[in-house]
Amino acid sequence: MSENDERIKVLGSLTEAVNRLEEASAFTNLIPEVRTNLVYSKPEPSDREDVAGIDGRITVVGGFPKASGSPKFGVSDHMARAILEISKFKPSFRAGINIKFNDRIMTVIENYAEEESLKVGEIDRSEEPDKSKKGEIKSMPWKIEYLHESHGGIPKIFYETAGWGKEPLFVILGDNPVEVVDESLEISSRV
Amino acid sequence: MSENDERIKVLGSLTEAVNRLEEASAFTNLIPEVRTNLVYSKPEPSDREDVAGIDGRITVVGGFPKASGSPKFGVSDHMARAILEISKFKPSFRAGINIKFNDRIMTVIENYAEEESLKVGEIDRSEEPDKSKKGEIKSMPWKIEYLHESHGGIPKIFYETAGWGKEPLFVILGDNPVEVVDESLEISSRV
Amino acid sequence: MSENDERIKVLGSLTEAVNRLEEASAFTNLIPEVRTNLVYSKPEPSDREDVAGIDGRITVVGGFPKASGSPKFGVSDHMARAILEISKFKPSFRAGINIKFNDRIMTVIENYAEEESLKVGEIDRSEEPDKSKKGEIKSMPWKIEYLHESHGGIPKIFYETAGWGKEPLFVILGDNPVEVVDESLEISSRV
Amino acid sequence: MSENDERIKVLGSLTEAVNRLEEASAFTNLIPEVRTNLVYSKPEPSDREDVAGIDGRITVVGGFPKASGSPKFGVSDHMARAILEISKFKPSFRAGINIKFNDRIMTVIENYAEEESLKVGEIDRSEEPDKSKKGEIKSMPWKIEYLHESHGGIPKIFYETAGWGKEPLFVILGDNPVEVVDESLEISSRV
Repeated sequence: MSENDERIKVLGSLTEAVNRLEEASAFTNLIPEVRTNLVYSKPEPSDREDVAGIDGRITVVGGFPKASGSPKFGVSDHMARAILEISKFKPSFRAGINIKFNDRIMTVIENYAEEESLKVGEIDRSEEPDKSKKGEIKSMPWKIEYLHESHGGIPKIFYETAGWGKEPLFVILGDNPVEVVDESLEISSRV
Repeated sequence: MSENDERIKVLGSLTEAVNRLEEASAFTNLIPEVRTNLVYSKPEPSDREDVAGIDGRITVVGGFPKASGSPKFGVSDHMARAILEISKFKPSFRAGINIKFNDRIMTVIENYAEEESLKVGEIDRSEEPDKSKKGEIKSMPWKIEYLHESHGGIPKIFYETAGWGKEPLFVILGDNPVEVVDESLEISSRV
Repeated sequence: MSENDERIKVLGSLTEAVNRLEEASAFTNLIPEVRTNLVYSKPEPSDREDVAGIDGRITVVGGFPKASGSPKFGVSDHMARAILEISKFKPSFRAGINIKFNDRIMTVIENYAEEESLKVGEIDRSEEPDKSKKGEIKSMPWKIEYLHESHGGIPKIFYETAGWGKEPLFVILGDNPVEVVDESLEISSRV
Repeated sequence: MSENDERIKVLGSLTEAVNRLEEASAFTNLIPEVRTNLVYSKPEPSDREDVAGIDGRITVVGGFPKASGSPKFGVSDHMARAILEISKFKPSFRAGINIKFNDRIMTVIENYAEEESLKVGEIDRSEEPDKSKKGEIKSMPWKIEYLHESHGGIPKIFYETAGWGKEPLFVILGDNPVEVVDESLEISSRV
């Protein structure tokens, strides 16, 4: 597939996934304070410009999820960096979405994961080395390496615990955005 | 390519094309009263659900073109019916955009067409048979057949003259929406 | 009331009215090809900048009316010019909305007008003098004067018949946008 | 002024303020991870329904601030609760906006406050009692009372330090949203 065909496919999958998300009122229960982003990278991404996301993230308007802007390359920061690091260990996980973390959602996800025989990963921010917290070394590589080492691979679902100034979040990974949105919708319907 | 891959490719091409359009302030000069739609069909479309367009059409906000909603299948009516009829004569013309008609734009398009060695087609609504105008037979099949017969094929650019209650419009056709948007942007930069 | 207070009140009334409109799925039946605009002028308007409207007009997305942009002064052309002319005869009609014209809507509006003891005005474009049609004199002053003379005042509801290249439209006038939206919603619920 | 006139005035002031904000590319530097909300209450508010905000908050799309939805009553949670508590001590502070906290913005705001002879308040979340943190008593009343007691009044500008899972934020208060947006724009132009 040509470079251009890959770009088109990435944007199209995000558009299809967002169209599904915007019809699901229940998904608003999973949108965190920092809002949701949904990202999808080209195969073998090398930098943020290879990862597409939703410009302005996904918020809640009139009781429904709403993509603030359209899918574009280079518009995501946090989730794009996560996917870039994840791609080093598990290249097939090219799509990801971040959702809210709370006790109720934790219970639903634990049950869902058990049914699906999935492990739920944890990034315990309290174990982050000071150098990383202070920004002397980069935080994301530490996080993903921690995740990989402590779980013997990259789990399809993981959460970051709260940090100082940082909201706790779940992340759902998958091969493409339609897959991660469909899983998110299943989870939201149980919350 | 699978049915699903085709859908994704159609949505992705529309997203890429709209992203380009929304950055082009000059394109606002080409947006007609009825607003612009940009459509793209799956190969061998059989009904409106096989044609994707921009939900809510493309309007002007803050001096820039703005897609009211996202690319979706089944949301276009007029332009979708045009593409369905056109596909019977020229299956490669799967994408189309409608733009404003006035004397200035006519001059620009005539010059552009001459440079590109293109013919500019005309649908003269005054030649439309009464049965079609009255809705006893469908209007779109008549129009596209008229276009085909009077020009010996489907021209890449054509216009419909004003009708009773109907705004005159140009339509630009092409193999995909990025191609028709790039042509529209070239034209808008000259208007 | 200060000049600035008047501006704020105009924008606030439009925001309140649009919020109501966006929740009313039935109103989509009244949105014409040229899309709906809703305008509201300051008292004694002297030019387009004194009339606020919805930037990008009101379109249909996901089955609901959607304001493309926010209420702003100076963003409406056609409806703003109508209100400016109307204000010369009937200064209290500072708000207006344009809606679709067809046989079904005509019947509903005739019944509604009878119940409310309102006259429905008509602007017969075929009576427009050639000078006006050709743009040698301005069209809107002719239309509103025609309306005033032929009906002995400015009727609260009127329509313009189809013209060459012009979609026929109803216009509902009132003292403020909430009033005209509430009337439009009543009509849309019967269509 | 009637109850309804107050509602209209609140919505109109928010619309005017958001229109200014959306044109200011520099303001994107002040939008925090949790996104910005801008709120304005009716005089003497008694609950969240008396406070209007921007539905879906204000995010960044295409390099400019973008209101996700329109101004509406009852759509803000955090900022609405802040204004409700603040109104008990300083009823004229009916408008507020939350912006990003970092070292650069802190320096700019300190300089700005000095020029304007304003005090910058601080809510030190580490002093929050455990009962409040755990949600056994409400957090917002504690915060605003702390602010009031430690500064001898409600300062026009204050910040909350980072908390466990909580992003640090500045809040700018004022008599109306146009005032707080104009101050925010002045600050953003210096960052």
